[in-house]
Amino acid sequence: MTEGIWHGGDLARARALFPDAPTPWIDLSTGINPIPYPLPPLPLSLWQRLPGADDEAALLAAARTAYRVPAAAGVVAAPGTQILIDLLPRVLPALVGAGPVAVLGPTYAEHALAWRQAGAAVIETATLAGADDAASMVVVNPNNPDGRSLPAGDLARLAARCAARGGMLILDEAFADFKPEASLLPGLPAATIVLRSFGKTYGLAGVRLGFAIGETGATAALRAAMGPWAVAGPALAVGTQALADTGWLAQAGAARAADAARLDALLSPLGRIVGGTALFRLLAAPAAPSLFAHLGRHGIYVRRFQNETTWLRFGLPGDAAAWGRLEAALASFVPPVDSA
Amino acid sequence: MTEGIWHGGDLARARALFPDAPTPWIDLSTGINPIPYPLPPLPLSLWQRLPGADDEAALLAAARTAYRVPAAAGVVAAPGTQILIDLLPRVLPALVGAGPVAVLGPTYAEHALAWRQAGAAVIETATLAGADDAASMVVVNPNNPDGRSLPAGDLARLAARCAARGGMLILDEAFADFKPEASLLPGLPAATIVLRSFGKTYGLAGVRLGFAIGETGATAALRAAMGPWAVAGPALAVGTQALADTGWLAQAGAARAADAARLDALLSPLGRIVGGTALFRLLAAPAAPSLFAHLGRHGIYVRRFQNETTWLRFGLPGDAAAWGRLEAALASFVPPVDSA
Repeated sequence: MTEGIWHGGDLARARALFPDAPTPWIDLSTGINPIPYPLPPLPLSLWQRLPGADDEAALLAAARTAYRVPAAAGVVAAPGTQILIDLLPRVLPALVGAGPVAVLGPTYAEHALAWRQAGAAVIETATLAGADDAASMVVVNPNNPDGRSLPAGDLARLAARCAARGGMLILDEAFADFKPEASLLPGLPAATIVLRSFGKTYGLAGVRLGFAIGETGATAALRAAMGPWAVAGPALAVGTQALADTGWLAQAGAARAADAARLDALLSPLGRIVGGTALFRLLAAPAAPSLFAHLGRHGIYVRRFQNETTWLRFGLPGDAAAWGRLEAALASFVPPVDSA
Repeated sequence: MTEGIWHGGDLARARALFPDAPTPWIDLSTGINPIPYPLPPLPLSLWQRLPGADDEAALLAAARTAYRVPAAAGVVAAPGTQILIDLLPRVLPALVGAGPVAVLGPTYAEHALAWRQAGAAVIETATLAGADDAASMVVVNPNNPDGRSLPAGDLARLAARCAARGGMLILDEAFADFKPEASLLPGLPAATIVLRSFGKTYGLAGVRLGFAIGETGATAALRAAMGPWAVAGPALAVGTQALADTGWLAQAGAARAADAARLDALLSPLGRIVGGTALFRLLAAPAAPSLFAHLGRHGIYVRRFQNETTWLRFGLPGDAAAWGRLEAALASFVPPVDSA
């Protein structure tokens, strides 16, 4: 049922589109940090035994500190944020009945899909005014793919309006780790669920680890839908260690910000940098479809968009070879005459 | 919400109950194979990138072959079987409305809990006759903890009755890998969902991998509730390789059957062997509470039962040291006079 939505990261699709491209593929189609947190040693026991309640508690404690979670709020860990997006409308069916759910977009498409599948009336709007009739709202903040960040005051007002209407504010902070001042935590308003993602910032998307933070009734309902061992033992161990490593986060944030500036300098001659985060940049250019194909033929996979054909999102190259191939491919691109 | 249910495997509880026990703890409280499938090398890319659609497809193909899934049936992979148990009543709400759900017990307690949480009327029955009024049934086959196996003909009749009543047969085959003749696959009846678990047989419970097999509408609904990347990249790779390794399965099954016979010989003097599988044995003995405490003081953790106080379930020791400590501890046990 999600086959219709394009996602980054599926290189099988890139290989099918460009079977003659040089390898290895350079995958810039995601917002995943290409320099991962160094995997700690993982004792065999983490693979062998069921994760213990103490392992889960240690992870949740690390998440509370890293994300500055208010003491009264609940935290639940999941095998990735995506499953939380899919479960939220199912475990909180009262939200579907409370009224329309507005998704501030364009943004990550799975939010709207999950609410529609649960029977909600979904309003996809590019402006806050377009959400005036909504009981609940989904805001990805900072936003993917354009990096748009709403001020905390605006978000608090949205949360209060949702609360008054029996709805909730779903705030997806998947890209807030490198921009902690953009997070609504620790001042979490009522009727607000914050989603945090481990894999992108720490470059370990295959681990599958995400969090929902909010009122304890909501987080307990999510936990009940997944049961006691939904997060793998190695994921609990890696997450617990990485979330406590504030030194790594600081240096990685600075390094990726420098990479993002370097990427902007490469892309600016080709169009307009709409925005982004330290992990991806969004380019708007009339020649985007041609550029996508040109890069694909050079073994470089970037993210295009079904409804925004002039956009391309670029993740960060991870090493000198990838930077070199990207620079060379961009330098050899000649836009078609009709898009110049 | 599962705090009230006792599970094996949580050594933190053992340490709290017996703080002065010698270490390392010998955990016999689970049905997890103590000799795991050898972990293959796991390239860093499995941790870094989102699992691809091709990775998931490869796992599902391996599962279809290993479990002998009929071509027309759907298969969905999940981060462990537990989440499937919790999601089933939520994604198939019509079953809750169709009538009572009978759970043939005593068995794994999370089945009844999940259906109760979803609002179903749950009948826990020790006999098939006790399920006569049920629209749906849950049967763990072979059963945990007593190893009871129903004949395929009985199961097919139950499935047909459930189908006629608008219900389904939920058949948990978590312990069928070493006893493939007990599986209702490949002759899967209509209105039947079969659950298969990876972690127990392959000794890798921390990986979190399980499967639901049945009509495509049901498996697609489960997949939609979890989204596209619920199973971690390393889990997909380990599962794909292990499920195709029929040689390992055959030798492991023979070795564990020999271990189970050795365990029976040790336990028989203490009571009655109710049954079990190649991965655990169930002992019935009036002195079970004393034996549990005696073993705990020797750093050996076995599984006791809230509602069956004369039962203890023993998993298999994993090495000579564990066998030796178990033999010594059993030999030094003196039942209390009032339970002799």
